[in-house]
Amino acid sequence: MITGATRILAIIGDPIGQVRAPRVWTGLFRQNGIDAVCIPMQVSRAGLAAFLEGAKALRNFAGLIVTIPHKPAALSYVAHPSARAKLVGAVNVLRLEPDGEWAGDIVDGVGFVEGLRARGHGVEGRRALVVGAGGAGTAIAFALVDARAAEVTVFDVASDRAADVARRLRSTGARAQAASAADAAGYDLVVNATPLGIRPEDPLPVDLERVARATVVADAVVYPHITPLLAAARERGCAIQPGAHMMDGQVALQAKFFRFESGAWSPEAIAKVAA
Amino acid sequence: MITGATRILAIIGDPIGQVRAPRVWTGLFRQNGIDAVCIPMQVSRAGLAAFLEGAKALRNFAGLIVTIPHKPAALSYVAHPSARAKLVGAVNVLRLEPDGEWAGDIVDGVGFVEGLRARGHGVEGRRALVVGAGGAGTAIAFALVDARAAEVTVFDVASDRAADVARRLRSTGARAQAASAADAAGYDLVVNATPLGIRPEDPLPVDLERVARATVVADAVVYPHITPLLAAARERGCAIQPGAHMMDGQVALQAKFFRFESGAWSPEAIAKVAA
Repeated sequence: MITGATRILAIIGDPIGQVRAPRVWTGLFRQNGIDAVCIPMQVSRAGLAAFLEGAKALRNFAGLIVTIPHKPAALSYVAHPSARAKLVGAVNVLRLEPDGEWAGDIVDGVGFVEGLRARGHGVEGRRALVVGAGGAGTAIAFALVDARAAEVTVFDVASDRAADVARRLRSTGARAQAASAADAAGYDLVVNATPLGIRPEDPLPVDLERVARATVVADAVVYPHITPLLAAARERGCAIQPGAHMMDGQVALQAKFFRFESGAWSPEAIAKVAA
Repeated sequence: MITGATRILAIIGDPIGQVRAPRVWTGLFRQNGIDAVCIPMQVSRAGLAAFLEGAKALRNFAGLIVTIPHKPAALSYVAHPSARAKLVGAVNVLRLEPDGEWAGDIVDGVGFVEGLRARGHGVEGRRALVVGAGGAGTAIAFALVDARAAEVTVFDVASDRAADVARRLRSTGARAQAASAADAAGYDLVVNATPLGIRPEDPLPVDLERVARATVVADAVVYPHITPLLAAARERGCAIQPGAHMMDGQVALQAKFFRFESGAWSPEAIAKVAA
């Protein structure tokens, strides 16, 4: 039941119909006995700046989750970005600070790593290939470095983008490089951070011909739950990590950012809500 | 269940905790099989202009209900006000037009009249006293004129405000005047449009000493449901009209404004939701 006293968490993106956050968060709020709901807000690219300025007036909002295509652009309107948001060049959570300005962080990369850990896949000492050097790929690459991956290799069809991310990763002291092909051979962890796999006719984003059985193959694509890449990896005997776990892995981090102190926000809690 | 595809109706005001709209509208949407919810948005006075500018970017909003203290101020940001909104000098519903600008109307006065009609109280040919010449009183006075009241008398402790509203009413060709006292004697319909009655210690806003039994006494105050004024009027044998009916009477008008074509929005439908 929504009343005048209900607090609001919103997710902004365009398109918005496909996002899971309203269902997951509203379910978690109910499960945790918190009088709050999560609503979708379809904000056009052209309207983002004015929207973020106007939304500073909202006194009963816990904050905003930011999704495609606004993650990089929203950073420009954040007076208090986290160090990680500045490194990645994007934000995916915003909250108002007492000075009336936005604080922003990006937790999807960290959420990806948390999601791996929750399913028993460590990152420390592993050699990782990240395919796709856009917002999601960049956030994941930085989070892998932060979680002490031995080496992070980045591939993008736009090779200059991959080279740029690799250079920024190295600037933090990490071992990182750009690859000339998306070939899974020789990696402990392979991550698809491109949109390939959303449409049934998409080609596989990674060549699995020579993938090792011990390699964990992960996808940042949420729908379908098992992408063609993950299906192919499973056939080859690899452990797979669907994109939903990246989402689930960041919920607890987001809850903390939005200052929901108590409550269960774990993948187990989410599973109960989703069921 | 809220999903990414759920449409949003919001009510903006400050404070916001007390508003009924989120419960009533969300209940009606569910009852009517419409995938939408109504949420509260606490918008500060200082932030209104920026908020209304930024909210033009919202593509999945049915519109905004505007409540205290924003009804008069919001009019300034409406490119397409209704003739009635211009007359009253305030809006209480906003929607985005195809040109990306706000259209605004004020339906609380009309809702008041609809609420009276729904309970068998006609307005045509009646002599009405409206006590309080603020936003609500002005809207009610104009709606009474529109519903062919024989004469509308306005009282306000600030006599210049009452005189101003009476002058504006007369400019539409109506019979209207300002009164020097809030005395119920001689009227067919008496309306309290001041906030008096919200706090238990408030004095009665209208002198009922010489009220006729045939007089209908109405209140725009929603809480308490039976104000001291209504209780006193009932004791004197008058028919009474609680403020909730003014709210309920405008829901169908608002639904039409927000372009919800189908569905039941009547006081009977609302009663089912509230029960």
